[in-house]
Amino acid sequence: METIKNYIADNKDRFLEELFEFIRIPSVSAKEENKADMLKAAEWLKNSLLKAGADKAEIYPTAGHPVLYAEKIISPDLPTVLVYGHYDVQPAEPLELWNTKPFEPVIKDGKIWGRGADDDKGQLFMHVKAFELMMNTGTLPCNIKFMVEGEEEVGSVNLEKFCTAHKDMLAADIILISDTTMVSMDIPSITSGLRGLSYMQVEVTGPDRDLHSGLYGGAVVNPCNILCDMISSLKDREGRITIPGFYDDVKECSPEERSEMAKRPFNRENFMKSISVKELTGESGYSDLERIGIRPTLDVNGIWGGYTGEGAKTILPSKAYAKISMRLVPYQNAEKIAKLFEKHFLSIAPAGVTVKAEYLHGGESYISPIETAGYRAASLAVEETFNKKPIPVRSGGSIPIVATFEKVLGIKSILLGFGLDTDAIHSPNENFPVYNILKGIETIPIFFKNYKNLF
Amino acid sequence: METIKNYIADNKDRFLEELFEFIRIPSVSAKEENKADMLKAAEWLKNSLLKAGADKAEIYPTAGHPVLYAEKIISPDLPTVLVYGHYDVQPAEPLELWNTKPFEPVIKDGKIWGRGADDDKGQLFMHVKAFELMMNTGTLPCNIKFMVEGEEEVGSVNLEKFCTAHKDMLAADIILISDTTMVSMDIPSITSGLRGLSYMQVEVTGPDRDLHSGLYGGAVVNPCNILCDMISSLKDREGRITIPGFYDDVKECSPEERSEMAKRPFNRENFMKSISVKELTGESGYSDLERIGIRPTLDVNGIWGGYTGEGAKTILPSKAYAKISMRLVPYQNAEKIAKLFEKHFLSIAPAGVTVKAEYLHGGESYISPIETAGYRAASLAVEETFNKKPIPVRSGGSIPIVATFEKVLGIKSILLGFGLDTDAIHSPNENFPVYNILKGIETIPIFFKNYKNLF
Repeated sequence: METIKNYIADNKDRFLEELFEFIRIPSVSAKEENKADMLKAAEWLKNSLLKAGADKAEIYPTAGHPVLYAEKIISPDLPTVLVYGHYDVQPAEPLELWNTKPFEPVIKDGKIWGRGADDDKGQLFMHVKAFELMMNTGTLPCNIKFMVEGEEEVGSVNLEKFCTAHKDMLAADIILISDTTMVSMDIPSITSGLRGLSYMQVEVTGPDRDLHSGLYGGAVVNPCNILCDMISSLKDREGRITIPGFYDDVKECSPEERSEMAKRPFNRENFMKSISVKELTGESGYSDLERIGIRPTLDVNGIWGGYTGEGAKTILPSKAYAKISMRLVPYQNAEKIAKLFEKHFLSIAPAGVTVKAEYLHGGESYISPIETAGYRAASLAVEETFNKKPIPVRSGGSIPIVATFEKVLGIKSILLGFGLDTDAIHSPNENFPVYNILKGIETIPIFFKNYKNLF
Repeated sequence: METIKNYIADNKDRFLEELFEFIRIPSVSAKEENKADMLKAAEWLKNSLLKAGADKAEIYPTAGHPVLYAEKIISPDLPTVLVYGHYDVQPAEPLELWNTKPFEPVIKDGKIWGRGADDDKGQLFMHVKAFELMMNTGTLPCNIKFMVEGEEEVGSVNLEKFCTAHKDMLAADIILISDTTMVSMDIPSITSGLRGLSYMQVEVTGPDRDLHSGLYGGAVVNPCNILCDMISSLKDREGRITIPGFYDDVKECSPEERSEMAKRPFNRENFMKSISVKELTGESGYSDLERIGIRPTLDVNGIWGGYTGEGAKTILPSKAYAKISMRLVPYQNAEKIAKLFEKHFLSIAPAGVTVKAEYLHGGESYISPIETAGYRAASLAVEETFNKKPIPVRSGGSIPIVATFEKVLGIKSILLGFGLDTDAIHSPNENFPVYNILKGIETIPIFFKNYKNLF
């Protein structure tokens, strides 16, 4: 521990200078104009890992942006940790809302401000420097591999193919990812689960054109009213989803798991205040955090139909649409749920309208059992550096690629994130506290040590 | 009758030439660029009525477009008929869908094609020529007044004020209006009622910004889902509106009235085919035509909220909106219904959202009792010229100014329209059969004769 702390203290300023270099590369995966920057970021990473002591670091082209792979193999007898991260960032727009320039990072109030400061350049950088630290202090206890993609912000569209094609090269015992948050620096936590997603678009058609609401209204079925009826019927009075078979594959959490999760501090008043609502409600029989973490949901993400301009137009609309997504929990399957949704939605369409339901996209949920060597190694490492046992947190969000890793590579992931909810990822003024970066660089080598011991 | 027929036969070609002149003036009330054309149309009408024999014809300025008033008073002892119409027309756009130029009328297939050919230049013109006919043949049996406005297509915004200011000048026993349709030339009909309207816009607000549907979904109330629930709850399983007090002032039609209305031929299959729907449904216990004609409705005219672009965006929206209008029947009051709606809508808002309901506009329903001298005069006139007794038809549409006439001037209106559903008013390729125009000019003098006799 002294070795780690000393190394960080001695190299802190250089670390930050290097991270600034990385952030200055505007590697926005969504923008064609940044194509050259994408390669530049991958090369910066390659050089950084080679310099830190990787045996090998290579840039693999894909149909989209390239994947950087690197490794340091000490011995086939030792466990192997595969670090996953991404070097691409979200677009910085709207630029006028930034207080500083997004690709000219600065330190202010103890935080680094810039696009990618947290997501995921900052969090990935902790692993590069932890690797350097372990190499330079002769303390690397496991084999290590890096797989860093450039398309996470655009749906990781080519990564499954890359994993399938390079399964042997990527062989490992555990995947380590820092792309999530902790509850706070006082309440350390590890993400122990992610929800899946089925995202649908529905269309209800009545008459073949907008009609005069006076001359037809009353006898002709109105697709906007009907869409409201149909959506409303998708949940019962208890907030349970009424699609037949929807809950069939849900694995209920045990009372023990639920009582463990209930230990997570949650200030209901502050939570409501932060989003300006006066009440929280949801499925009966579950707490607020359970409703977000361990229960599936059904939310309208968008709805539209008929006249939506200024003033009054008296039409009986021809069509109504909605985007409806369901967050899923283990072991619901995204495609199966999409099919159940479609079947049910079509079955409840009344006479007088025709209905379509299209599956736009989805991904599987993921669960990281807290009794595994990987989770325990992470938990003990955080406990050592934060002086507090971290809480396992089931996140309501989705990182579908984590389920893909399990499916294609057969490897579990540990979601050891050091971000905070206040880091404004994907928003203007993204930031990452310097304290968190250094805490991450300090914690990761201890994870490696623990993992080797517990393996 | 011979006198009438001969006069029409002798002057038919001139009539059409004159109507073409009138249609050529692009008097689009909605367009600032046509301001001069509005005055030109009013002047054309003034000259036309003076030439036909009016004692007096004057253009009255308003805050918007002017009102043309004209009169021929024979004797204070005779009944007075006030003809109402409008010289303004709807915009012609989209121009590319017209087969001919909208302001260059042509005759083809026995119809006049052009903007305003029916609504309302063609129908109003019938009254001008019927007046000329009665003057030139010495057969005008009643006093006659004309009130022709230039703002009907933009909501008659200044006409109530004009009526209030000129109540004495406008004094009459009956108002005669040709601005509606008949079922067909084989099934003559007279519009015996119009529905009123209350048009609302509602807004449901959840969190103060769009939230990540994964990190918040399940515990935070979704305003789009809630709006669907609320709209869905506004009707019960029988299609009845659930707003408390909504039906309190509805005057139910008697079994006799309903059985009289049921005589109107209605081809359900053709009706459904014309709008490409496979079923018609509505309030239980009423026929299709009753649902449109004599029952109030509640229709969503537009709905919107959240993400409505391409693909998937996983948000829990901050807001959802809808435009909801109710067609009203005698003796529902538009403002009262708007207040009942608002009160009820706010009362059903669940915890976790805030709700607003705004009354955008409305108008009262109108009923023309079929036992009055005015209605009987019209019915007998149509029976004489069509050789068939016309059916009284309760239209589902709204012409709020008719209720205003009754309120401000205390005069009932007779809706003696000669248009057809196929005339494409407000649409490209508006048209009006020459047959209908001549039938109108033939029928109107007989109405005057009958009205004097029945008065």
